[in-house]
Amino acid sequence: MNSIGDTFVFTSFGESHSAAIGGVLDGVPAGLHINFDMIRAALYRRAGRKSLNVGVSARALREADEIEWLSGVLDGVTLGTPIAFLIRNRDARPEDYEALKHSYRPAHADSTYEAKYGIRDWRGGGRASARETAARVVAGSIAAQMLAERGITIKAHLVQVGGETNAERFNEVIRRYQTEGDSIGGIIRCEVTGLPAGLGEPIFDKMQAHLAYAIMSINACKGFDYGSGFAGVSAPGAVANRQSGGLLGGITDGTTLSFRCVFKPTPTTPKALKQMQNEASPLPLPKGSGEDISGKLTVGRHDACVAVRAVPVVEAMTALVIANFISLA
Amino acid sequence: MNSIGDTFVFTSFGESHSAAIGGVLDGVPAGLHINFDMIRAALYRRAGRKSLNVGVSARALREADEIEWLSGVLDGVTLGTPIAFLIRNRDARPEDYEALKHSYRPAHADSTYEAKYGIRDWRGGGRASARETAARVVAGSIAAQMLAERGITIKAHLVQVGGETNAERFNEVIRRYQTEGDSIGGIIRCEVTGLPAGLGEPIFDKMQAHLAYAIMSINACKGFDYGSGFAGVSAPGAVANRQSGGLLGGITDGTTLSFRCVFKPTPTTPKALKQMQNEASPLPLPKGSGEDISGKLTVGRHDACVAVRAVPVVEAMTALVIANFISLA
Amino acid sequence: MNSIGDTFVFTSFGESHSAAIGGVLDGVPAGLHINFDMIRAALYRRAGRKSLNVGVSARALREADEIEWLSGVLDGVTLGTPIAFLIRNRDARPEDYEALKHSYRPAHADSTYEAKYGIRDWRGGGRASARETAARVVAGSIAAQMLAERGITIKAHLVQVGGETNAERFNEVIRRYQTEGDSIGGIIRCEVTGLPAGLGEPIFDKMQAHLAYAIMSINACKGFDYGSGFAGVSAPGAVANRQSGGLLGGITDGTTLSFRCVFKPTPTTPKALKQMQNEASPLPLPKGSGEDISGKLTVGRHDACVAVRAVPVVEAMTALVIANFISLA
Amino acid sequence: MNSIGDTFVFTSFGESHSAAIGGVLDGVPAGLHINFDMIRAALYRRAGRKSLNVGVSARALREADEIEWLSGVLDGVTLGTPIAFLIRNRDARPEDYEALKHSYRPAHADSTYEAKYGIRDWRGGGRASARETAARVVAGSIAAQMLAERGITIKAHLVQVGGETNAERFNEVIRRYQTEGDSIGGIIRCEVTGLPAGLGEPIFDKMQAHLAYAIMSINACKGFDYGSGFAGVSAPGAVANRQSGGLLGGITDGTTLSFRCVFKPTPTTPKALKQMQNEASPLPLPKGSGEDISGKLTVGRHDACVAVRAVPVVEAMTALVIANFISLA
Repeated sequence: MNSIGDTFVFTSFGESHSAAIGGVLDGVPAGLHINFDMIRAALYRRAGRKSLNVGVSARALREADEIEWLSGVLDGVTLGTPIAFLIRNRDARPEDYEALKHSYRPAHADSTYEAKYGIRDWRGGGRASARETAARVVAGSIAAQMLAERGITIKAHLVQVGGETNAERFNEVIRRYQTEGDSIGGIIRCEVTGLPAGLGEPIFDKMQAHLAYAIMSINACKGFDYGSGFAGVSAPGAVANRQSGGLLGGITDGTTLSFRCVFKPTPTTPKALKQMQNEASPLPLPKGSGEDISGKLTVGRHDACVAVRAVPVVEAMTALVIANFISLA
Repeated sequence: MNSIGDTFVFTSFGESHSAAIGGVLDGVPAGLHINFDMIRAALYRRAGRKSLNVGVSARALREADEIEWLSGVLDGVTLGTPIAFLIRNRDARPEDYEALKHSYRPAHADSTYEAKYGIRDWRGGGRASARETAARVVAGSIAAQMLAERGITIKAHLVQVGGETNAERFNEVIRRYQTEGDSIGGIIRCEVTGLPAGLGEPIFDKMQAHLAYAIMSINACKGFDYGSGFAGVSAPGAVANRQSGGLLGGITDGTTLSFRCVFKPTPTTPKALKQMQNEASPLPLPKGSGEDISGKLTVGRHDACVAVRAVPVVEAMTALVIANFISLA
Repeated sequence: MNSIGDTFVFTSFGESHSAAIGGVLDGVPAGLHINFDMIRAALYRRAGRKSLNVGVSARALREADEIEWLSGVLDGVTLGTPIAFLIRNRDARPEDYEALKHSYRPAHADSTYEAKYGIRDWRGGGRASARETAARVVAGSIAAQMLAERGITIKAHLVQVGGETNAERFNEVIRRYQTEGDSIGGIIRCEVTGLPAGLGEPIFDKMQAHLAYAIMSINACKGFDYGSGFAGVSAPGAVANRQSGGLLGGITDGTTLSFRCVFKPTPTTPKALKQMQNEASPLPLPKGSGEDISGKLTVGRHDACVAVRAVPVVEAMTALVIANFISLA
Repeated sequence: MNSIGDTFVFTSFGESHSAAIGGVLDGVPAGLHINFDMIRAALYRRAGRKSLNVGVSARALREADEIEWLSGVLDGVTLGTPIAFLIRNRDARPEDYEALKHSYRPAHADSTYEAKYGIRDWRGGGRASARETAARVVAGSIAAQMLAERGITIKAHLVQVGGETNAERFNEVIRRYQTEGDSIGGIIRCEVTGLPAGLGEPIFDKMQAHLAYAIMSINACKGFDYGSGFAGVSAPGAVANRQSGGLLGGITDGTTLSFRCVFKPTPTTPKALKQMQNEASPLPLPKGSGEDISGKLTVGRHDACVAVRAVPVVEAMTALVIANFISLA
């Protein structure tokens, strides 16, 4: 449930306001020299420092420097044993969330969690928090380093923000939504080069099936396509079939693997909340559950385009999937 | 590798020209009365009879009446033991494929299979054959019947063919491509009603992640999205977040679950092949492998829009995923 | 539930009186030349022909010649795709079991099955039937052939029958119990030679843990030990530790792997049943379930020592476990 | 590899001299009130305090009071999210192991680890260290508490030490071996009461198969049996079949489940080492590997009978297996 992979397995733990978040990465071969700077750089990108500098918290930035390595690494070299690590939740302030104890935030998983578990960790969204992705980025960076030794490189970047496809204008578009108290979606393209031919299985365990699974497991991701994708629906056969996306029959063909994924706009924006105050709640609340507090919520900092910070998470999940296939090959 | 599910497990076997294709479905509870007519109807739809009647072979139609039930069912009632079934490949004519023995068909998995296995069953595409999906439809129909007993209904339908979104004109569009010896893609929408709230897991095993995995494992499927999906990229937050697709945080919220998937055009068309004869092969053939025979291939019957016949396969894979979550709940 | 293995997976299906029993073996590499005579020989040994010729039915002997190969093999060579096979239950006579429809046989799984499934296939013991092991033997023989190509040999033999450890007298001991309408247990030793060092995982997936799992899944098996085993309890450290059984820390050390397993006497014997008629039933029957029919049962042929025919099943399960570790290595 | 369970999953991490050992327990339902005193008591028993007080280190005793809870628990109540915990290796003194850096200890996993991983964490035995079982005991105790709420109780105890079966004399026997610088094996019986009928699966996933797997994964365990077990080999059918051990056909029958397991003597004793100095090494060292240092090793404190401290580990592994079956039921 909180693990991904068969012979290269990442297990994630931690609520956003528990003592720590972290993970266990099992299946990394012995002898890999870990580049801690690369892990830090990936976490920085997730925290937003090198990108558009929108909605970045001091907490997120500090994470990168505060990973505790518990096992599996000796003098910077992997031992072949499970690599466990944690990042402490130092500024956990449960009192900030006290108001949410008996309430649901609209368009969040609060209500479905309570339907599922009966109990709910109302502090900071619990497991649903985007903070959990920091652990994915750490594990994915180790996977990526293992792959880099074999000449495999993974690179994702934002290719669309709202209706805009000119990267030079992304910053401007996002700032506009930010200023308006609104949010906007984005599309990320990810490319993997240096893959050997023959990775993937023909029936259920197709490469694209596992990639889709891993990418769709990222919060706010609403879609995945590869090769000719959704756009290819209106291209005639002779054209569409040139765009294999690096896969034939679910198996890598030795060319560049390429896929896209889309992230929805942040749900909790000042504008969205204001609008909800004048309407009925769109959320089907379970009977006997907490009241809808749309009208009472206020929003401090907000992230106008979560797709920006999702880029290193997409790379991380891709690395975990490819590493699993490599370790099975 | 040829199995899907954790406690509701479908295992598929059979090459397109081996003695039989079939499957084993493990995890069906005892006491379910199997409606064999429903299975037959799903196979008919996969064979095209009730739909647009394009490119349907006599073999495909006959399959529906020729399932052999090997185990797990007694007097039409499930026993709780594995349900094994097979469909014989009665008109397997390996000699038809003799010409392909040392060749690759363009845009097929022939080359990646050989890269992976060293050997290749060159008769009829082996496991990559669309014929394998007949077994999925049988298993998925049993899963759907189990779900129907709990009030859960799965219904997929074609919502786009090429650029056309008016269902009344689909037939006309497909016939045009058929006549021109060309092919065209299609988009399918699938809706699941009657789901209880609380199905799915918060981190990796989100409902949408498992659905994406299962749907992307269907041949020719190039993309998956749900809720606001790819289209939602340009909608502002306040609008996009109304379209949850029936899921919040990876867990069903008790409303209708809705997703889309896109199927590429059939690769092997008369037009595509003709075009290839005048160009360099776009396929990176492994060294020392068979010659490219694009120029020599002829195409008999062809399916101008595989999305039509994919509809019951999408329903089947959806049923298998939901049944697995139900059996884990 | 009816599958074993991670990347070398055997799925078993079939009730003793369904249309067929059989299996799907997934993960066999392409290019293996199947020796069908070896499979036949293993089935013969399971049927008892080459061993002590006790309690062998014509049906069991005929099985060996009646395997239908459904997929995964072309001209006797594996394709790398799932190998499906079946053995028909030709002389299934459900009427013989009509009397059992509302009854439990003592010391059989009849009552636990009904507790678990609500329904029960009362015909011939359903899945609990020893007949299911024929499918294991077929799959295990293929695994063993794959291992033989790598120089790995698996050989099991009976080392104890009742209190007797002199193999020359086993026949005599078994005949005595047969004549008396009684049954007796046996111990099998299995040795694996030619194993590379390094197979097995240090923590949970120790080689001995997986072997114990697979062997204990055989009907009537009541115990497993390796190396110094149970006997080593009274040997001082300096002596006991010489007997590693070919494993250190759960991992093969390159020497001969050696383990034992014990099989209980057949439960349904004429003597046991007679005795039960004069006593209270030792079985805790679920409330409202069928009557205890100990007193009404008659026993035709019976197998005085099931351990004899378990020998090839032990080899088969061992081969499946080793093949899985090899395919993961 | 370092995880056990399907829907109730325990993942273990940590080398004996890494920063910490610990684990992640996934699948515990929300709302369980954790009794931390029970966990502490189990760790004390593992450390030897309440038992025979032989070979207990200060480090082992301190562990019980130093568990750090990282996630999954809020105010002592489980959240339904993964429970992560760690125990620091405070007195890790790598310098003590410097001498072992290029050497193998006899009858330890040192050589097989190096064969497997190429690298080896020579500090304290790495993952093979018995210290890893502390994490199992923590996780197993939580599982046991979950089971206790359903009326299921697990209790293991020592039933044999060397040839001695009179519990009152165990202490005396062990002290004698301790004094002589030797070691001795032991047999543990474990009983589970309060189990519902119907747990376990008929074919591979028999209850006894999973128990055997989990128990055989404990260091130094050399055998497992249940019901009539190995002793039953010489009992006639009518007698042996009374001892079902609480299982029929792999499924619980609602009576007390009972099994045994045997632990070999500690390998590294003063006597064993002394003896080795005068003999050839019994260990097949891989070529080009470190020298055999049998003759140079000294032994400080040693545990004359590891079976004593294995008792709570057997209970823990049993609890994890039963909890997994319960969570699947």
